[in-house]
Amino acid sequence: MRLAELSRRGGVSTATIKYYLREGLLPPGRRVNATTAEYDEEHVRRLRLVRAMIQVGRLPVAKVREVLGHVDDDSLGRSIRLGAALWTLPQVPEPDEDDEYVQDAHREVAALLDRLGWENAKQLASISPSYRSLVVAVAAFRRLGYGWGAEQLAPYAELMHRTAALDLDFMEAYPSDAERVEFALLGAILNEPLLRALHRLAQEEESTRRYGFG
Amino acid sequence: MRLAELSRRGGVSTATIKYYLREGLLPPGRRVNATTAEYDEEHVRRLRLVRAMIQVGRLPVAKVREVLGHVDDDSLGRSIRLGAALWTLPQVPEPDEDDEYVQDAHREVAALLDRLGWENAKQLASISPSYRSLVVAVAAFRRLGYGWGAEQLAPYAELMHRTAALDLDFMEAYPSDAERVEFALLGAILNEPLLRALHRLAQEEESTRRYGFG
Repeated sequence: MRLAELSRRGGVSTATIKYYLREGLLPPGRRVNATTAEYDEEHVRRLRLVRAMIQVGRLPVAKVREVLGHVDDDSLGRSIRLGAALWTLPQVPEPDEDDEYVQDAHREVAALLDRLGWENAKQLASISPSYRSLVVAVAAFRRLGYGWGAEQLAPYAELMHRTAALDLDFMEAYPSDAERVEFALLGAILNEPLLRALHRLAQEEESTRRYGFG
Repeated sequence: MRLAELSRRGGVSTATIKYYLREGLLPPGRRVNATTAEYDEEHVRRLRLVRAMIQVGRLPVAKVREVLGHVDDDSLGRSIRLGAALWTLPQVPEPDEDDEYVQDAHREVAALLDRLGWENAKQLASISPSYRSLVVAVAAFRRLGYGWGAEQLAPYAELMHRTAALDLDFMEAYPSDAERVEFALLGAILNEPLLRALHRLAQEEESTRRYGFG
């Protein structure tokens, strides 16, 4: 397809596509003559992913380039490639290891993983930004006087585990590795607002069932 | 307790407490003489809530005052009071009703609620910001070429419903109405980072179980 068609399919103006091409966020099309290039389905998919990261995820261009570098690094296995790409997305601030609530939270999160039998997550603990995000979130609860720990977190973690299994089931329905990695990245960006909205709506449904509208 | 003790218990400096008092975010203490006031457990709890909204939730002071106005409005029933307070928290931008993806998303979300039998959420649809957030999130998926609708959302919604039931179970463990409403508000602010981190950690655990570390 030509540039105009790519623009229509991707929902992005031709000027923006040219900008993405210059910035290396889209691979160049196949040249057919001095002024025309031909694009394919891979360009459409990549364009949608770039658009999601920039317009929905509000990632800076340099960050998008870094994420895509991991996605396209064929020297890595699929899990590592996906992990590296996901871990490049913006994360919460690092925990302050001198803070007593952070130290408490570390103990509770370690106890949680033991309780759940999440052996892989335990192995990844020292390098995973998700692990550190969890420590920060638990420390915030504890700092406010709510003694949340492994016991209170376990039922939430079980539900999030089932949510994660659903994510991967949907991902596996895509035929190629490239599409799977792209879907997982999109999920990381778009699922959060989706799950948050479903969660809040479910709270409204459930609290009205329990307490009525009054 | 005196101001110094309130500062220690709430983890907030005395200068900040005086600022919150001036701004009406904390009720005044009981005057014991011209220069001293006495504070109680309700002040500690309220101080922690204000701190969570400002420091963690990054809400502006005027917004915090508005939320607390609903919390303290005894003319309202508990559900309405909680709903009003939660709905005052910042929401996503409004959906653009002229957008074809938004119109599609409305149909899919309506079909989802029918499928789930969420009759209360259906009744609240025209006034609930959570409903509109969900429409916006679904429209974003569809705009990127992923045909997500009621069918794909249903299993996620079921898991979020169980998550919401857990939230309410924890809330109900608090003895007074005031504490329950405060816990629900704190949850709305602090649960999101917690659930997001648990979800990402669960994805790492599950994908490593399925595909190994390579």
